[in-house]
Amino acid sequence: MTKKKTNSDSTSKKPKTELAVGVLGSGSFATAIVKMLVENCKTVHWCVRNEFVKGAIELRGHNPTYLTAVNFNLKNLKLTTDINEMVSACDIVVLATPSIYLSDSMDKLNCEYGDKIFVSAIKGIIPKVNNVVAHYLKDEFKIGFRNQAVIAGPCHAEEVAMERLSYLTVATVEEENSKKLLDIFSSDFIKVSASKDILGNEYSAILKNIFAIGAGIASGLGYGDNFTAVFVSNAIREMETFLEAIYEAPRDVNESAYLGDLLVTAYSLFSRNRNLGNLIGKGYTVKSAIQSMNMVAEGYYAADSIYQTAREKGLKLPIIDTIYGILYEGKNAEKQYRKLTAKLN
Amino acid sequence: MTKKKTNSDSTSKKPKTELAVGVLGSGSFATAIVKMLVENCKTVHWCVRNEFVKGAIELRGHNPTYLTAVNFNLKNLKLTTDINEMVSACDIVVLATPSIYLSDSMDKLNCEYGDKIFVSAIKGIIPKVNNVVAHYLKDEFKIGFRNQAVIAGPCHAEEVAMERLSYLTVATVEEENSKKLLDIFSSDFIKVSASKDILGNEYSAILKNIFAIGAGIASGLGYGDNFTAVFVSNAIREMETFLEAIYEAPRDVNESAYLGDLLVTAYSLFSRNRNLGNLIGKGYTVKSAIQSMNMVAEGYYAADSIYQTAREKGLKLPIIDTIYGILYEGKNAEKQYRKLTAKLN
Repeated sequence: MTKKKTNSDSTSKKPKTELAVGVLGSGSFATAIVKMLVENCKTVHWCVRNEFVKGAIELRGHNPTYLTAVNFNLKNLKLTTDINEMVSACDIVVLATPSIYLSDSMDKLNCEYGDKIFVSAIKGIIPKVNNVVAHYLKDEFKIGFRNQAVIAGPCHAEEVAMERLSYLTVATVEEENSKKLLDIFSSDFIKVSASKDILGNEYSAILKNIFAIGAGIASGLGYGDNFTAVFVSNAIREMETFLEAIYEAPRDVNESAYLGDLLVTAYSLFSRNRNLGNLIGKGYTVKSAIQSMNMVAEGYYAADSIYQTAREKGLKLPIIDTIYGILYEGKNAEKQYRKLTAKLN
Repeated sequence: MTKKKTNSDSTSKKPKTELAVGVLGSGSFATAIVKMLVENCKTVHWCVRNEFVKGAIELRGHNPTYLTAVNFNLKNLKLTTDINEMVSACDIVVLATPSIYLSDSMDKLNCEYGDKIFVSAIKGIIPKVNNVVAHYLKDEFKIGFRNQAVIAGPCHAEEVAMERLSYLTVATVEEENSKKLLDIFSSDFIKVSASKDILGNEYSAILKNIFAIGAGIASGLGYGDNFTAVFVSNAIREMETFLEAIYEAPRDVNESAYLGDLLVTAYSLFSRNRNLGNLIGKGYTVKSAIQSMNMVAEGYYAADSIYQTAREKGLKLPIIDTIYGILYEGKNAEKQYRKLTAKLN
């Protein structure tokens, strides 16, 4: 059951940080992040999609569309629809839009932002540049990796809304930034670990969405728990192969940010990527499955880009190949999975 | 839904092997194994617990208590309650009793068995010797590792009964035995991989039961999917630490026999170990939780032995320690889990 609870404590207790923090986005994960931040920040600057959303939050104290049970104390929020107003006011900016919409907002950025920390909570490929957020920010906005961070980890927004204990990983190369970010995100219901693997965390968060579509397809086709376990154990090995090829670093893919995030997405009924796959497995066309969902399934867009990268690098990733074939080449899910079963072990 | 289906093909088609194969045990996994074997063997020699079970199977064509929907063609079965009759008739003997009952049967063994292959499908510690099956067979019966094998993998009996595609791993040091075992287990619904890691496979199958109790406790206490994902990602790392300390071998714990088996047990509602934990998390005493189940939860017995071994080896395994404390020292699950959450990452 969902707890109805206002973050009323936040006005009385001393905020843990004096830093000004902002969030871009008004979907479910953006809303969950604002909920995490009001635990620690006096004011959270929240840049939402449009005036309707802004007005609705200011009127009702909750997001009108996502995580509607999360009630905010409006004294803790500074709402805007202007990215420049939000970024100018902040030391740390958390980007939390769906990946396909990020450039719509970022294209409007024209204020000074050289000394800000940009934290990506986006788990997808930016279509405009066909690349991950870290490279998009670096190449298009000259935001160096030292001013960037990635938050990852098994963290369904719906459970954050309910204040169910969740773990985040903050990846950043600067020790000093790492401490700041641990401070602003840690709370009674959020535990935060530090990592230096920005690209690995970003790619793993993207890959897991594709694998979750695959787990959903298996479920929709009628495969059972035994098969799903084999599928996921092959998926984490494909993830490791991909990450090593993209960016070699000392990493253990069994840490929560990698395996944990894959598990929560592949096994949870909250996962929109898994649900998309499930519909496809049940026989929906890819197009109608996408249309029937009112949330963006990041894995769909990512599958194309990741497949191309894997091909360029000559990687052998049977699960990624199979999902790409089903999503983009109109191949029959049932037949493709029958072939895939022979390649797993 | 459970398919009602008799293995009627088995009488008409040519069996894949001429080897004589036997199974010891009449629980759900033993029954699932007999179902796998009748696909490939002309006759399966099945040594069951007592005359009642033998008579019931001979009368009705199915096990009266477990996987009752699996109907056998009696022409494929040679039932007995005498372990010596079964072992004498066979080249390969699959041991599939609960671990606590194995020695009751094995103590009666007095026929020649030096040239037989003994395959353990048991996932637990033998109380009499406080050791795994591989060592019990070697020390007590002089059955060397070359005449042994272990079958592991994410393979819930209930799904085998439904002929849902499942993957097994056969661990054996002898190449020749490996081929024989692949032949007798592989079928349309069972895919088999080979491994040489007998002890690693046996211990991982034991450890995963303990972790599944832990996942169940978390669920019973009200922790959500985000936490479970973190829990399992820590569990597989504890498993790796333990296996490396017990027996160093080139192994990837993300293969299906290790991670896959952990996943199916920790996530599946079929898992009796997870269910035991769930009851404890909901507030049942350990004793009443055990009594309320009519199947043996192997993880309960294993937790004691594994905890002691880990202590002797000086291993730091916070999940194992926590579960041991709850199961054997009467510690409060809620408090212990609150402490545990600070140790996971």
